[in-house]
Amino acid sequence: MRQSLARELNDLLERGRDRQLRLAVTGLSNSGKTAFLTSLVYQLRHVGLEARLDLLPAAREGRLLGAKRMAQQDLGVPRFPYDQAMEALDATPPRWPEPTRGISELRLTLRYRPARSGLFQRDTATLTLDLFDYPGEWLLDLPLLGHDYLSWSESQPFDPDARRQGERHALFADWLDAVSTLDPAASADEAQLAAIAERYAQGLRAARAAGFSDLQPGRFLLPGDLEGAPVLQFFPLPGLGDRDRATLAKLPEDSVYQTLVRRFAHYQQHIVKPFYRDHFRRFDRQIVLVDVLGALNAGPERFEDLSRALGTLMKSFDYGKRSLLSRLFSPRIDRLAIAATKADHVTPEQHANLVALLEALLAEPLRDLRFAAVPVRAMSLASIRATQAREVEHQGKRTAALRGTTLDGEEVLVFPGEVPARLPDATFWSRQGFDFRAFRPAPRENGTLAHIRLDVALEWLLGDKLQ
Amino acid sequence: MRQSLARELNDLLERGRDRQLRLAVTGLSNSGKTAFLTSLVYQLRHVGLEARLDLLPAAREGRLLGAKRMAQQDLGVPRFPYDQAMEALDATPPRWPEPTRGISELRLTLRYRPARSGLFQRDTATLTLDLFDYPGEWLLDLPLLGHDYLSWSESQPFDPDARRQGERHALFADWLDAVSTLDPAASADEAQLAAIAERYAQGLRAARAAGFSDLQPGRFLLPGDLEGAPVLQFFPLPGLGDRDRATLAKLPEDSVYQTLVRRFAHYQQHIVKPFYRDHFRRFDRQIVLVDVLGALNAGPERFEDLSRALGTLMKSFDYGKRSLLSRLFSPRIDRLAIAATKADHVTPEQHANLVALLEALLAEPLRDLRFAAVPVRAMSLASIRATQAREVEHQGKRTAALRGTTLDGEEVLVFPGEVPARLPDATFWSRQGFDFRAFRPAPRENGTLAHIRLDVALEWLLGDKLQ
Repeated sequence: MRQSLARELNDLLERGRDRQLRLAVTGLSNSGKTAFLTSLVYQLRHVGLEARLDLLPAAREGRLLGAKRMAQQDLGVPRFPYDQAMEALDATPPRWPEPTRGISELRLTLRYRPARSGLFQRDTATLTLDLFDYPGEWLLDLPLLGHDYLSWSESQPFDPDARRQGERHALFADWLDAVSTLDPAASADEAQLAAIAERYAQGLRAARAAGFSDLQPGRFLLPGDLEGAPVLQFFPLPGLGDRDRATLAKLPEDSVYQTLVRRFAHYQQHIVKPFYRDHFRRFDRQIVLVDVLGALNAGPERFEDLSRALGTLMKSFDYGKRSLLSRLFSPRIDRLAIAATKADHVTPEQHANLVALLEALLAEPLRDLRFAAVPVRAMSLASIRATQAREVEHQGKRTAALRGTTLDGEEVLVFPGEVPARLPDATFWSRQGFDFRAFRPAPRENGTLAHIRLDVALEWLLGDKLQ
Repeated sequence: MRQSLARELNDLLERGRDRQLRLAVTGLSNSGKTAFLTSLVYQLRHVGLEARLDLLPAAREGRLLGAKRMAQQDLGVPRFPYDQAMEALDATPPRWPEPTRGISELRLTLRYRPARSGLFQRDTATLTLDLFDYPGEWLLDLPLLGHDYLSWSESQPFDPDARRQGERHALFADWLDAVSTLDPAASADEAQLAAIAERYAQGLRAARAAGFSDLQPGRFLLPGDLEGAPVLQFFPLPGLGDRDRATLAKLPEDSVYQTLVRRFAHYQQHIVKPFYRDHFRRFDRQIVLVDVLGALNAGPERFEDLSRALGTLMKSFDYGKRSLLSRLFSPRIDRLAIAATKADHVTPEQHANLVALLEALLAEPLRDLRFAAVPVRAMSLASIRATQAREVEHQGKRTAALRGTTLDGEEVLVFPGEVPARLPDATFWSRQGFDFRAFRPAPRENGTLAHIRLDVALEWLLGDKLQ
């Protein structure tokens, strides 16, 4: 009895404390960050009413009482545009919300009844949930911090002697032409460097538009207020390498080479580091969204590119003692989720394969994270379900299919294909067996916002805080 | 002889030093900042060739040898888009350059032969000229620093009892409707505050589009990366005054009132002050451009509004010991120019009146500046001349006229009217005697970029540095 009372008092103290969780959502462009965060906020705000959260025990047991929007703490960070997103989903016909650019923030207060209630059982507790959304592209800049300008330049995929250069290389042809005539020892001409940098940025934009992901430096794609500033006007110098280091170091201050060196260093100090220092290291938990299906649909070169980009992106979460990040700051993320989004775009029996493929794609980073004892979980989900699973009779056999409305408004019944459970090989690509369609969101019925396994993600990311 | 040698050596030392001048151009929207800076850079770069700088002694005497663009110092500030501006002027038909947004920068090195040459007469000296361009609207925020939220709110022109409210007041009708139902003591609803703040910003944008200038807070009009951030989501609460101070101070932290108080303070600390600290106090000299003719054309309400806005703007330049700014930082501007731009839009015999009117408009700030011993000069100029002065015979009398091409491409010969030499009174406005047209730039002939008295401005702003 005495022990039980002590425990109850302890629980009470715990509940009385100001509990706060900072949860960040990230992912590369088009991975579904806005849809995820919109649905997450919607489900929590409508818990016990229109929300469907059966796989979140606190909700299933009726202990999660509700969520209220509160004023966010950092007044200088844009607010996540939840209302605009809901307006888009409720439009006729429904539209996907506008993608966010840069970082945004939203604060909720969750009210819940703790699981172990006893003497004080009518008590409720609150959890302050700070939600953040930021571009995964920013994480692709982490490796820059491990380089100086010369080694970064050498690490970029523009070897002039390379034979197999692929489609992505071709998108940089204009820039390669321009940079090939540039003498690193010449006196720097601001206007010329600006023009060449613009061609480089055009190459990055074209590559992103063509479905590539592994693009650096990340801010060249979303310059914001820095548009036109010299800090965003550098680029690699193909053909230079470590063997040239001593010669290059002797070039005068106003040479092309030294100018690029200064800009690169400024980018490291004033763009990359501030994000990690002011934001990243303050997130408690994160979820990384990955559009595996989109990459699978786009063919082998883009799929490999996504794989490389994810490898780079995941390095920000690798807290091995020797990691670059832990030497700079000490991040404190204690739980991580990796999710393949848009699971509603394949038939349900493919979902297991989708998770298996995600795990295969991230095999190495996942191994490193587990070795570093970072709790991480891979899953598949659809933040906002756009299709319905059906079975059709085809040549006497029952087959799974999807019914949905394409972005053009055409109602279709399709079987998109099988998701491979491991990394696709040449045979898979030659079969071209995958026909991914983009669907538009379904009109909401009875005020619900249907999803697939968003509640699983919620349970992993905050379930323990609602005990 | 000995004395003369000592002087020469001293001069030589002086010349050897790294001489630098930081010159800033400002003015409200549409005052002609981009045209001014473009023409200034053009004239200096083409000195001795296509440039016409007869009123700048260093150029007239052939001592100014040339100007070269150099890499700017602050890598995080956008570069002034000189090349794009020249492209617009050289297009067929010529266009005015795109207006800049926010601050931008460009560095020139001027090479000149000092006036007093002797023993070392073939020596040349250099002057590093850092040019800046920033919105005059940012200076309208200075008075905010002298307020707290309540006194600022009271100072805004939204007294609900006011009888004569004018056209500007009407542009805020939507916001006034929304804010009138807001209870300062109620618990703050983020989404509601965002919606009301958006209506306030819409009011500011509508007022600017309608030709008004005295608009606060300045960043609401050019939010950039802060779009959607709570720091840009405050507004006055009409009807509250100092008499309510004690009551309001007791309201809880999460009340509407206290939320607005926090946002206002954040805006002061993180938006207004950094501009003065990081930029303004480092400018050596400044020129303020004023579109007097535009305001004259737009009628009495807008003209008075411009007068108020200029009064506010000029406070940033008033270095009286008791000035707000000198208490915060110590700016070091040692020379100031005030210029009425677009002088080519009236006939030449009106130019004297234009300067007189500008001085009348700025009578009070000019008096304060002279009292504070800040060297200041008023002038009229046309950075890029768009018209040609003609004389026409009308009813047997020779009259001055302008020939130019309107923005629509129509060639016209007009007499825009007389500029009053003092502040216009009711009689002037009732006569409606002024017919200002907007002209497009003339095609450049023989590579020159014609101007009116840009060289006078240059002589005042940097002539002494070229001695």
